[in-house]
Amino acid sequence: LANNREIGIGLMGLGVVGTEVARTLLEKEHSISSKLGCTVRIKRILVRAPEKERRYVPADVVLTDGAEGLIDDPAIDIIVEVMGGEYPALEYVQRALRAGKHVVTANKEMMAKHGPEILTLAHEHSVSIRFEAGVGGGIPIIGPLLKDLLANDIYGISAIINGTTNYVLTKMGMEGLEFNDAVRQAQALGYAEADPAADVEGLDAAYKLAILASLAFHTKIHASDVYYEGITKLGPADFKYAAELGYAIKLLAIGRMEGTSIQVRVHPTLVPVEHPLASVCGVFNAVELEGDLVGQVMFSGQGAGGQPTASAVVGDVLDIARNIVSGSNPPAPLLLDGACTIQPMADLETQYYIRLLAVDEPGVMAQITTVLGDLKVSLASVIQKEIVQPEGFSEIVITTHTAKESAVQEAVQRMRSLGSVQEVSNLVRMLDGEG
Amino acid sequence: LANNREIGIGLMGLGVVGTEVARTLLEKEHSISSKLGCTVRIKRILVRAPEKERRYVPADVVLTDGAEGLIDDPAIDIIVEVMGGEYPALEYVQRALRAGKHVVTANKEMMAKHGPEILTLAHEHSVSIRFEAGVGGGIPIIGPLLKDLLANDIYGISAIINGTTNYVLTKMGMEGLEFNDAVRQAQALGYAEADPAADVEGLDAAYKLAILASLAFHTKIHASDVYYEGITKLGPADFKYAAELGYAIKLLAIGRMEGTSIQVRVHPTLVPVEHPLASVCGVFNAVELEGDLVGQVMFSGQGAGGQPTASAVVGDVLDIARNIVSGSNPPAPLLLDGACTIQPMADLETQYYIRLLAVDEPGVMAQITTVLGDLKVSLASVIQKEIVQPEGFSEIVITTHTAKESAVQEAVQRMRSLGSVQEVSNLVRMLDGEG
Repeated sequence: LANNREIGIGLMGLGVVGTEVARTLLEKEHSISSKLGCTVRIKRILVRAPEKERRYVPADVVLTDGAEGLIDDPAIDIIVEVMGGEYPALEYVQRALRAGKHVVTANKEMMAKHGPEILTLAHEHSVSIRFEAGVGGGIPIIGPLLKDLLANDIYGISAIINGTTNYVLTKMGMEGLEFNDAVRQAQALGYAEADPAADVEGLDAAYKLAILASLAFHTKIHASDVYYEGITKLGPADFKYAAELGYAIKLLAIGRMEGTSIQVRVHPTLVPVEHPLASVCGVFNAVELEGDLVGQVMFSGQGAGGQPTASAVVGDVLDIARNIVSGSNPPAPLLLDGACTIQPMADLETQYYIRLLAVDEPGVMAQITTVLGDLKVSLASVIQKEIVQPEGFSEIVITTHTAKESAVQEAVQRMRSLGSVQEVSNLVRMLDGEG
Repeated sequence: LANNREIGIGLMGLGVVGTEVARTLLEKEHSISSKLGCTVRIKRILVRAPEKERRYVPADVVLTDGAEGLIDDPAIDIIVEVMGGEYPALEYVQRALRAGKHVVTANKEMMAKHGPEILTLAHEHSVSIRFEAGVGGGIPIIGPLLKDLLANDIYGISAIINGTTNYVLTKMGMEGLEFNDAVRQAQALGYAEADPAADVEGLDAAYKLAILASLAFHTKIHASDVYYEGITKLGPADFKYAAELGYAIKLLAIGRMEGTSIQVRVHPTLVPVEHPLASVCGVFNAVELEGDLVGQVMFSGQGAGGQPTASAVVGDVLDIARNIVSGSNPPAPLLLDGACTIQPMADLETQYYIRLLAVDEPGVMAQITTVLGDLKVSLASVIQKEIVQPEGFSEIVITTHTAKESAVQEAVQRMRSLGSVQEVSNLVRMLDGEG
């Protein structure tokens, strides 16, 4: 099995992930060649400041600030794109594929917005495009979806795929922290960025869900098809009431396929404490898939960080390297031509949690339940608590049986217009155990 | 991407799994060809009684009791072996590979005993051999180990990979059942075979661990290298005491690699209730892997049954079909030539749970703790309970800090020779949280 073929790598980006990729390929060069029978070596690295000194970069590796240096280098077989962001990554990846380079990317934004075109372009040029690191960090999930689970009709995705928000929600749930304090703790530990907006607003999870759902449902689902809502409105009271009711609060990415109708949504969700996703804590990620043959399968692990992400990136690199050595052609991409439509959120049917602040006087509960009853929204439970501040008010927490989103939204509007209701503080969807 | 290539399948075995494979390929023929751009169709099926009528077998499929009919058919590209057992499956698979057929198998016994030779044979004949269904039923685990996690040095495997025993242990733990009663319930539900020996003695899990550990540690590990011990000696008292101490009891398959020393062992294990494996219940399976880059990742789902196993088998078939269509060569097999040695069980270091029955009189505990102390086995906890039957005795449950297996086994021998000790009822290893 001896094979002295050298596989050349062009690395685009030398941030946290890029540095770990470089370190892994350097430190494991021997063990990789003994496992694979070929040598995998970085040839050139695209960086902003080529003159800066770098760790884990051997002297014979060329540092450059020009992407064409990597794309045009005949010694480079695989381009590894770990720059992130839509541009210029997309342009570089497209040029690399057109130049006949295989591409490994960790770029969820690019894949969520341009995945299908990139897959087609790779196929046209008979090269591979891999993006395992785009979802769930080091957790194998794209590979299993594309290969191991391919015999299934996948109809459900329930996932915790943003480590920052899961850390924040875990802290809020376990320590009763306010949102802003939990975010500051996450930032101090490097689990949240200085500007955490893309994470806490749910956008990052929406990108990842678009990728997962496209592959699971064999349908082109664009980032903009995914409904998303962040965790910024949650407060300690929500966690307290959720716990009383037997729920944790998680930012779930949910995909459902029913007939030709697809739901793709990211929002805070009440998850029953006995559900496996409820105990996925801190920066851990977990993806649960439901298929017609396999039933429920769950994958969990560290969804972010330099080393777990490098695990996925280098895993993709090594798989392509093996295929190059064996002279294999990349298989045709899966056809993402499902004739499905995205269900409008207004048509969603699930259970809801509603928290509101009302005047503490007789008849108020009757007004509120009348609003719900008029809209055919059926109550599952009600908690009413007198509160200290503001005096004379009570907090009311309602959970509903499965109801239609449009009806619940209308009910919230009507409640807001009741004189006795001070505010509807929060509306959170629940992981529907009914139906 | 239109491709009218037809991929012919020869199916060996039409039991529970074979029937589900046939049903899946028949019912999903259209959706498979729309996903893959090729048609996958069963041509011939090897059965014991070809004249019997079968469901899910179209009229143009040839039923035969001769394996050569499948192996020699030029219209057959892939042989699917779901007969089980070492012989004649091994002979058929070898002949199929030599005849240039790709092979998909669900046969853990064959792969645990002959895996490396089969992989080499497949490589010599430039065909694929796949066995995702051999471990964990429908849960993707072989694929992720061979591809997605390949950049890691995997150093730990902790797995629940036998659904029968996990069902039995779950019942015993939750309902206080005796072993035999729990087994009878499992049999009534079809979760245990009429002769459950291979499952309850740990042999089935040992086969699967041999396969997992070979791939994870890149070393040839034969079924006979794996230490295994079944669940037959456990009683309701063990579950009661374990719960008091904060543990569940699971049949774990454990692999560890330290330097060039490998542990591979299957035995009942006390697992802390907060550990994710403790809440894997009923017939569910779960595999936790630890790697240097990815950290801990866990895969869980249904580890047995016709449909989940068919999910894995057909997944392998479809992946090979895609490779055939794209004209790919199977990549060289991973080199399983790690120069490692199997650690003797006597050298194991872990924590232990010991349950014994002793005369209820002063000084007994001192005798027991002296035995342990003399052998440098350090106590972590002691529970002593007066019991009703036999009168005048008490039950003593000891847990140790990390200690050497040989010392603990010697301690048990010495305790048995103490006049005050009626019996050492059970010795169970613990999932070591120390060290």
